[in-house]
Amino acid sequence: MAMALALSERGRGRTGANPNVGCVIVKQGVIIGRGWTQPGGRPHAEEMALAQAGASAKGADIYVTMEPCAHESARGPTCSNAIIDARPKRVIVATLDADERTRRRGIDRLGDAGIPVSVGIREPEARRAMAGFLSRVEKARPFVTLKLALSLDGCIAMADGSSQWITGDRARAHAHLERARSDAILVGAGTAKADRPTLDVRTDGLTDRSPQPVILGSDPEMPAHWLQISEPAAIADLADINWLLVEGGAQTAASFLQAGMVDRLLLYRAPIIIGGGLSGIGDIGLEKLAAAHGQWRRTDLRPLGQDVLEIYERAA
Amino acid sequence: MAMALALSERGRGRTGANPNVGCVIVKQGVIIGRGWTQPGGRPHAEEMALAQAGASAKGADIYVTMEPCAHESARGPTCSNAIIDARPKRVIVATLDADERTRRRGIDRLGDAGIPVSVGIREPEARRAMAGFLSRVEKARPFVTLKLALSLDGCIAMADGSSQWITGDRARAHAHLERARSDAILVGAGTAKADRPTLDVRTDGLTDRSPQPVILGSDPEMPAHWLQISEPAAIADLADINWLLVEGGAQTAASFLQAGMVDRLLLYRAPIIIGGGLSGIGDIGLEKLAAAHGQWRRTDLRPLGQDVLEIYERAA
Repeated sequence: MAMALALSERGRGRTGANPNVGCVIVKQGVIIGRGWTQPGGRPHAEEMALAQAGASAKGADIYVTMEPCAHESARGPTCSNAIIDARPKRVIVATLDADERTRRRGIDRLGDAGIPVSVGIREPEARRAMAGFLSRVEKARPFVTLKLALSLDGCIAMADGSSQWITGDRARAHAHLERARSDAILVGAGTAKADRPTLDVRTDGLTDRSPQPVILGSDPEMPAHWLQISEPAAIADLADINWLLVEGGAQTAASFLQAGMVDRLLLYRAPIIIGGGLSGIGDIGLEKLAAAHGQWRRTDLRPLGQDVLEIYERAA
Repeated sequence: MAMALALSERGRGRTGANPNVGCVIVKQGVIIGRGWTQPGGRPHAEEMALAQAGASAKGADIYVTMEPCAHESARGPTCSNAIIDARPKRVIVATLDADERTRRRGIDRLGDAGIPVSVGIREPEARRAMAGFLSRVEKARPFVTLKLALSLDGCIAMADGSSQWITGDRARAHAHLERARSDAILVGAGTAKADRPTLDVRTDGLTDRSPQPVILGSDPEMPAHWLQISEPAAIADLADINWLLVEGGAQTAASFLQAGMVDRLLLYRAPIIIGGGLSGIGDIGLEKLAAAHGQWRRTDLRPLGQDVLEIYERAA
């Protein structure tokens, strides 16, 4: 299942409305098929892995990070039927589908066909790996990561707006990888106007994975392919966007935080002091200091060259 | 020498104008004497260790973190003479004395008496362990640590000044240990007036180690035992203070940073977002972002319960 979870990451940020699923087929200790949701959402992970395994899938163990689909689609066969046809020995599933059209139906269909199914193996990791899709289904909006490059004193720029550069090469490269794992990137109109960011992925081999740019607010000079929204809640209407990366600036960060629409903080902390610069996060309407506590849980903390990467997720 | 360095920490923050030295005497693999500079500066580490070893010091190895003193003092015998009298096999020294009255004289006196001396073992660690004394001798001022308890977005308080609490129990306990390792604590007049801090050490067993409170600026209601200075440069005049801990607020932090008088940053980072709060560091007169780089080197990064401890030292 660990390998299936790792494979699921390959599809992250490019599976459209579909979950980025991973699948591994094992027979007598040998891996005979590996799959992950392909760009745009098809083929599904199970379909890809079954194609690799061929007739050998008979009697094999199939590990898949999410319950195989059971609803008919014009775009392809249902994975539960394809698995039944392959006659595996058993199917191991990390988490159930959150989509009501399929929830438990894929499992039940396999069970009715006499194939033993285990559910719940590494479920927390699976929910994290496919959080974008799950957020869309459960919260009707994309999973939102707020990324900030900060000085030790929490500034994103000098008082005059200078911000190139806060962080070093390794942190910036990591941030570009994070872009490649996102369906869309959002910046505020102020940042768009001040920085004219390209919001593309400038990492060798991943330049074709640049996400959809989105702007919060209005900008008459916005490039034609950008999308525009007027408030954080409007991210619910962004079609086929599971993973949204919010890159600033301070007011945009604050408005998403105040709306309770940030699921994850991705902080790159540089070993510099700016002193009296522009704070990374504007007023979020906090009324009591105690209310700020218990909101965030640290999930990563490590050096990235001279900088430090800190990742926090919503505690609740 | 590792043990001698650890022993030297016992005296930190309470040796007056003297260095906090550590000393270990070893004979045939057995430790026969351990010493560290005692409160107020006497007895010296070597004197304490030699008293433990007694006549057994003859033929032993003496490890000491700083060159033994050679200048006569009304307060006690010179350690170099005491060592010569003890007839050890050899003396191992981490670093030379920075005090011109003694520099090399202690070593030379031992050599003249026929005792082999090695110098430079673990010197970087020794210089760090005794940085307070070395700063006084080399820079004519105490070694300054700037301590800040910050939110993820670099705030030390809400916009209305509320700051209890930013960090959790473990970070606050660590900060009290750091107070116990300091000769003096300094706060700005604004913080003194707003918070009326006691600046004592509230850790069981260490309450007698509360450092000298110092205020930057003027405060008519300041307690009688506090000291007062009008500008950062005046710390040069604080008598018998090797280790100074600057605890805020933002303007005080900025004035010490701008004066180039911060040697170490001790940052406690809480997993909270305040958003539009009071920044931890005021204007430091930075003119170019590039000039902020290369100033600080990370020496520690670790979780303290829910918070994160980050320590930086001057890179140059």
